[in-house]
Amino acid sequence: MGSPKPGRTPGLSEDQTLQRIRRTLGNGIEAPGLRDDAAVVDVPGGGPLVVSVDSVVEGVHVDLGLCSPADVGWKALMGALSDLAAMGAKPVGALVALCVPESAEDGAVTLGVMEGVAEASRETACPVVGGDVSGGGVLMVAVTVLGTVEGGTAVPRHAARAGDVIFVTGPCGASAAGLRVLRAPSGDVTVDGSLAAAYRRPRARLADGETARQAGAHAMIDVSDGLGLDLHRLADASAVGFVLDAVPVAEGATLAEALGGGEDYELVVVIGPGDVDGYRKRCVEAGLRAPARIGVVRPDPAERRLGGEELGPLGWQHALG
Amino acid sequence: MGSPKPGRTPGLSEDQTLQRIRRTLGNGIEAPGLRDDAAVVDVPGGGPLVVSVDSVVEGVHVDLGLCSPADVGWKALMGALSDLAAMGAKPVGALVALCVPESAEDGAVTLGVMEGVAEASRETACPVVGGDVSGGGVLMVAVTVLGTVEGGTAVPRHAARAGDVIFVTGPCGASAAGLRVLRAPSGDVTVDGSLAAAYRRPRARLADGETARQAGAHAMIDVSDGLGLDLHRLADASAVGFVLDAVPVAEGATLAEALGGGEDYELVVVIGPGDVDGYRKRCVEAGLRAPARIGVVRPDPAERRLGGEELGPLGWQHALG
Repeated sequence: MGSPKPGRTPGLSEDQTLQRIRRTLGNGIEAPGLRDDAAVVDVPGGGPLVVSVDSVVEGVHVDLGLCSPADVGWKALMGALSDLAAMGAKPVGALVALCVPESAEDGAVTLGVMEGVAEASRETACPVVGGDVSGGGVLMVAVTVLGTVEGGTAVPRHAARAGDVIFVTGPCGASAAGLRVLRAPSGDVTVDGSLAAAYRRPRARLADGETARQAGAHAMIDVSDGLGLDLHRLADASAVGFVLDAVPVAEGATLAEALGGGEDYELVVVIGPGDVDGYRKRCVEAGLRAPARIGVVRPDPAERRLGGEELGPLGWQHALG
Repeated sequence: MGSPKPGRTPGLSEDQTLQRIRRTLGNGIEAPGLRDDAAVVDVPGGGPLVVSVDSVVEGVHVDLGLCSPADVGWKALMGALSDLAAMGAKPVGALVALCVPESAEDGAVTLGVMEGVAEASRETACPVVGGDVSGGGVLMVAVTVLGTVEGGTAVPRHAARAGDVIFVTGPCGASAAGLRVLRAPSGDVTVDGSLAAAYRRPRARLADGETARQAGAHAMIDVSDGLGLDLHRLADASAVGFVLDAVPVAEGATLAEALGGGEDYELVVVIGPGDVDGYRKRCVEAGLRAPARIGVVRPDPAERRLGGEELGPLGWQHALG
């Protein structure tokens, strides 16, 4: 099915596709989940529920030459949970729709994928509460996750304010670097185990997201399509600009991978300057890695810089080569 | 991708696959949704939430030669909502994961599917609260639905009792008959518009399910894989038998289609004899079609009959063909 590439609909960018779908659905019904990482649903008689759906498709998001079926299951659940992390939500359950190629189906792929889902489920204490299995032309796993903010308020993308401080919860680019070394002709490079694991077994930053929410974060987004692109999405949603003075690069990764590599699932946390000390303290108390301060929010939406250089949403690759 | 057939994993039956997945997931985590039509999740700080996921795959569940992309979207949402109907739940939201073949993708298929989703969403007052779109090898729509029972208790499959009366909410087989006439060589038959619509635009019996729950139904299941098969699933879950004395056949459908045709989405309602009058009365008051009494629950799980003839779970085609 071709080599893995970012999960965008061919012909249209992911953001363009979502805009058009929003217009289609906009006719009398709501689609808040198409704007944020996850949607907040008010359940009658209950509290707000944070919900999101995410898919992993063989040949688009993953290559079974580089990942086991269990890796695919793990990545699918973690990718969906990362959207909850970006809202500061705690997972309460997941539903898994699995489509398995008829040619491959002796049960091994199905059970392999579900093994990986089960491992990620145990790792995150997120029970799998529903599922559906179909035959089909290509391996696809769609995971819906449900979460709560337990009396608090989910952190959106759209509420970053000028003067806020921008953090990222950890260095970026390890997953993209892992994909690079896994795809290199064998013998070219020694495959670094930790980089390969970053690609095959990424982790949703659930505790980091909850801690940032409790510390009063104004806006968050998870780095699923690259720090460069996802930071622009947050800035677009908030109608603000930003100036970065640092990009934390994972060991073994390049700056381009740190800015453009998806599936790191680190969180971008935007927080008021008065809450920065409290945020750092809460991270220490929770036993989390120290978040890295990478810049500040600016009032002009047109001002988007890394140091002295303009940082475009999709053109960063060319600018930074 | 071959002709449409019931959505089972090749090599293993759907029920066998789900049993194996349950064992995989059983290692320390729950998977109640793999047993019932939908799962009930207790949300901290909120009431119970009823959740389910269902997929429609081109070539497995639908054929784009017989359905438009909008029909596929409609069928996907209605199929998922039917699982809520079978629990007596009222929908509060849906999440849609869409995978569209790269070859077909100029945006028209994506938008067509979402149009059909939007139509079904308006019809059922179930807002679409989240979505995900990917390229991929085959058209697939996975829909997760969330619902509530507003202070009540969801109706399971497993609580039918000997002596209970079995109803079905309407005549069966129209969807299968619609598929038959749509697949006939053109000129062979005049395509009956209402049968074709039954196949292309089925309806989840949400009001019927809520009414049956409020009337005290002990157990329910939706007819998604055929009355013959789904009734056995309910009886297996409840460890009971049944004797049917009637099978309501839709206008234009055959008895085999009524027993084996999936996607009618009528509900099988099992209710105590003392609650039958109240149930019928509530249906009248709610403006619903009168449910049809089709039989009774028997204590011996081995006794499963239609009149004087044994009714096997998969062998009905041969017995009745």
